[in-house]
Amino acid sequence: MTTHFATSYPRTGVTVLGLGAMGSALAARLLDIGYDVTVWNRTPGRDTVLVESGAHPAETVADAAGANPLIVVCLLRATSVYETLTPVVEQLRGRTLINLTTTTPNEARALADWADRHGIAYLTGAILAVPDMIGTPAAQIFYSGPQPIYEQHHELLDTWATSTYDGADPGMASLVDLAMLSGMYQMFAGFFHGAAMVGSEGMTAEEFARRATPFLRAMTSGFREYAAVIDAGDYTAPGQQSLEFSDLGHIVSASEEQCVDPATLVALQGLITREIAAGHGSEGFARVFESMRADTGDRTAERIA
Amino acid sequence: MTTHFATSYPRTGVTVLGLGAMGSALAARLLDIGYDVTVWNRTPGRDTVLVESGAHPAETVADAAGANPLIVVCLLRATSVYETLTPVVEQLRGRTLINLTTTTPNEARALADWADRHGIAYLTGAILAVPDMIGTPAAQIFYSGPQPIYEQHHELLDTWATSTYDGADPGMASLVDLAMLSGMYQMFAGFFHGAAMVGSEGMTAEEFARRATPFLRAMTSGFREYAAVIDAGDYTAPGQQSLEFSDLGHIVSASEEQCVDPATLVALQGLITREIAAGHGSEGFARVFESMRADTGDRTAERIA
Repeated sequence: MTTHFATSYPRTGVTVLGLGAMGSALAARLLDIGYDVTVWNRTPGRDTVLVESGAHPAETVADAAGANPLIVVCLLRATSVYETLTPVVEQLRGRTLINLTTTTPNEARALADWADRHGIAYLTGAILAVPDMIGTPAAQIFYSGPQPIYEQHHELLDTWATSTYDGADPGMASLVDLAMLSGMYQMFAGFFHGAAMVGSEGMTAEEFARRATPFLRAMTSGFREYAAVIDAGDYTAPGQQSLEFSDLGHIVSASEEQCVDPATLVALQGLITREIAAGHGSEGFARVFESMRADTGDRTAERIA
Repeated sequence: MTTHFATSYPRTGVTVLGLGAMGSALAARLLDIGYDVTVWNRTPGRDTVLVESGAHPAETVADAAGANPLIVVCLLRATSVYETLTPVVEQLRGRTLINLTTTTPNEARALADWADRHGIAYLTGAILAVPDMIGTPAAQIFYSGPQPIYEQHHELLDTWATSTYDGADPGMASLVDLAMLSGMYQMFAGFFHGAAMVGSEGMTAEEFARRATPFLRAMTSGFREYAAVIDAGDYTAPGQQSLEFSDLGHIVSASEEQCVDPATLVALQGLITREIAAGHGSEGFARVFESMRADTGDRTAERIA
């Protein structure tokens, strides 16, 4: 990465807690841009390269938390955040915490409550990137929580990735991130399953990738069409491929014939057949979306009860 | 579609059996190009538009089968093919059958055997397209079976779609087609699941599509990288995201928190945890491919026994 900022340019000091692959990449990018960075990691020895690049090593979390008005956290999971920060909660009072640790939306909401109770300004960040992508526009980070915090640190946040503000709900950034990842992992599952099917007759995965990549890439244009149907809520509008036509039975059978585990496909088939059984067989394939939400009412009722 | 062929250009006569949306599209394209086409459908009245365009209507399957040396079949399923063709098997002797009916690979193999026993030259075709795409290069049709049949009719086949010959195994064309469709359906499942997750907090599917489409399109470039790992068979090579890191527990939890059915994701998680339990947690995510093939040995043993 090249930068047009001189390293002497005056900037806010920033503390980065957690120097795994992602935390290290975030800290390295800030150093590269010219921020004054203090780093800390539970397991020692992870800060060597960063310190060589000008980072200040903190002996304790308390030192790290007290060093700067802005604290960036990138730990393993939500419980690690509580374990690390609870002992230094008084040092954090009045400071700003941007938490980039992967959490569920409810965990993010609980962390925001916890921060609020202790007078800590709190913003959720959710990273959609691998560490190597940090500092490039291909990396995406979603933020949610109080908008003034986001606006205040916008310039810093934009040095890491393409930033998007997803509203006041501190769980929303996590939710959008995990929704995108769910799409990605299921797409990869589909690729692996297809590769295993043709692989059972000797076709290489490379050859399958050569053929499946342009096809699936082209099929992503279907998302927008399905979205229009979902948002309109009319699965009976003409021109839709019906759920009955989308029966996956022959693909499941083919998978079994070739001794390839059809589990991921069977789960989808279950969502389709549930809608068909409910009398929606002639409606459009996008009703799978409704099938996934089918039990929302019941669960909400349960929670209220 | 425009054509540079005069309709009087002499060509092989072709019979098309089955005038559903796909069969009709195939027949219409042949007429458009100038072939002499005879059509038949079990339910009458489906041939009106085609006959107006110059097709010859056949009263019976026997008439249709006897009319031309080349018979194209596009019916509902494998059983429909037997039901339709068994009564006219003697008329078919010595002719060529190109079967574009959707079947499993084993059904295609059985049909090829059946044709062989009755002296019928047989080629499997598997269509990766919706009827509207027929006649455009975006439509793909895969063929497998005896290569001379494919070569002999190559010109005709290429008028429908981009043709690919997938070898002598009559099941292979179906297998490749269903593998591609498996990838597509699972990708759509991932999109619906992500849309349902963010939809639970009020984000429209259109907004999710706007954000997920470029992301998932970019992620298709991962197929080739995963394929290289799969073909090399070394899931311990450096630079891979580990199975342990790919644990989907937090996405499943987030889905449940938001009252969205995580079934498709849970099935994938099952494949991941199976590999972790077998001691492969530090190996690359592409091992999911092996997880899908995990019981091949057992099932093969069963069949041999």
